[in-house]
Amino acid sequence: MDPYRVIEVKQSIFEDNNQDAERLRQQMKEEKTFLINLMSSPGSGKTTMLTQLIPRLKDELKIGIMEADIDSDVDAETISHQGVKVIQLHTGGMCHLDADMTRQGVMELGTKELDLVILENVGNLVCPAEFDTGAAMNMMILSVPEGHDKPLKYPLVFTVCDTLIINKIDVLPYFDFDMDKVTEFARRRNPDIRIFPICAKTGEGMDELAAYLKERAQNLK
Amino acid sequence: MDPYRVIEVKQSIFEDNNQDAERLRQQMKEEKTFLINLMSSPGSGKTTMLTQLIPRLKDELKIGIMEADIDSDVDAETISHQGVKVIQLHTGGMCHLDADMTRQGVMELGTKELDLVILENVGNLVCPAEFDTGAAMNMMILSVPEGHDKPLKYPLVFTVCDTLIINKIDVLPYFDFDMDKVTEFARRRNPDIRIFPICAKTGEGMDELAAYLKERAQNLK
Repeated sequence: MDPYRVIEVKQSIFEDNNQDAERLRQQMKEEKTFLINLMSSPGSGKTTMLTQLIPRLKDELKIGIMEADIDSDVDAETISHQGVKVIQLHTGGMCHLDADMTRQGVMELGTKELDLVILENVGNLVCPAEFDTGAAMNMMILSVPEGHDKPLKYPLVFTVCDTLIINKIDVLPYFDFDMDKVTEFARRRNPDIRIFPICAKTGEGMDELAAYLKERAQNLK
Repeated sequence: MDPYRVIEVKQSIFEDNNQDAERLRQQMKEEKTFLINLMSSPGSGKTTMLTQLIPRLKDELKIGIMEADIDSDVDAETISHQGVKVIQLHTGGMCHLDADMTRQGVMELGTKELDLVILENVGNLVCPAEFDTGAAMNMMILSVPEGHDKPLKYPLVFTVCDTLIINKIDVLPYFDFDMDKVTEFARRRNPDIRIFPICAKTGEGMDELAAYLKERAQNLK
């Protein structure tokens, strides 16, 4: 048996996405499952961050991961070694997930017994931000090499996320990345945004992030 | 007078994009203007690369730059100091440019006297690849921090581009980036893809890239 399944999720063009999202959010709340929608650019370290987060939480929370990609199973394969439930969603070329595609993933994953489900969205700072997936929380990663001006250029994703992870802080000495500026620019989009500087490769900053997410998941908010 | 203008480009939903693209390509060919569509993830260094490329070409080619962004004029502002024609295109939230939006930019920029026009597309590895802009050449940047697995995960953009720039090679020692693997993965998508490793910050590799683009522009192919 494969350690993970691959599901082709298809966009529903007849449904109202906001209604679908509210319905899924309500369903997950009733099941006491906390769903996080994780967004970022390609290559900012979503999957690597998850390999650091999972070991810090899996003894206390039952975790499921949904890996969304246009193609390939690279990420689900990586996560399948982490000892949590994982499923690969293929979007068939689509640049984002909507609420109904997320619901299809949730059904296939089987989330009733889970405390925390993380949807790793398609690597894209634009389109995923436009579609409410039904998650209880939107979280994003910006990595140091991408530059501190990204909240100016991709405003919506910084507006809809309440948690911003700054990854790859180990390479800060080699890039012109200003932590004060990124904080200022991100807060212009969302004054309440929580910012966690981390290095997913070494684990730096991951304890604080894990503690925060555990608390959010246990309070379901 | 502002050193650059900002144009709101709007998607035409009534037109056939492929037809529009062919028409624009033909028009540019008649004008002997070589149009390059430059794509990449957010923060991979498109604008910085242009600041290295322009000084290497502007004495021999008349150059125009179209900076496409969802919002902000950060990139047009940067390019406006380079002594070439530049225009900022705002897509109003759209994640890509289509051929008609490109045509609107070309009209506003005024390309008749130009030899080389570079369209810096929205930072996104997914959607821009799906829309033929009418450019004579598709070129992309992948930066070292994004990882060598990107051709597996974002296959279309590597298929439609004939030139792949690998940027930020100065930080190769700090990342697990395998140049042989990225070459193998990219050639699975496009066996003829030309690969140029560069560092846009220091200028390494830029002479080779500039010579190649000059030749392409002068031969209009």
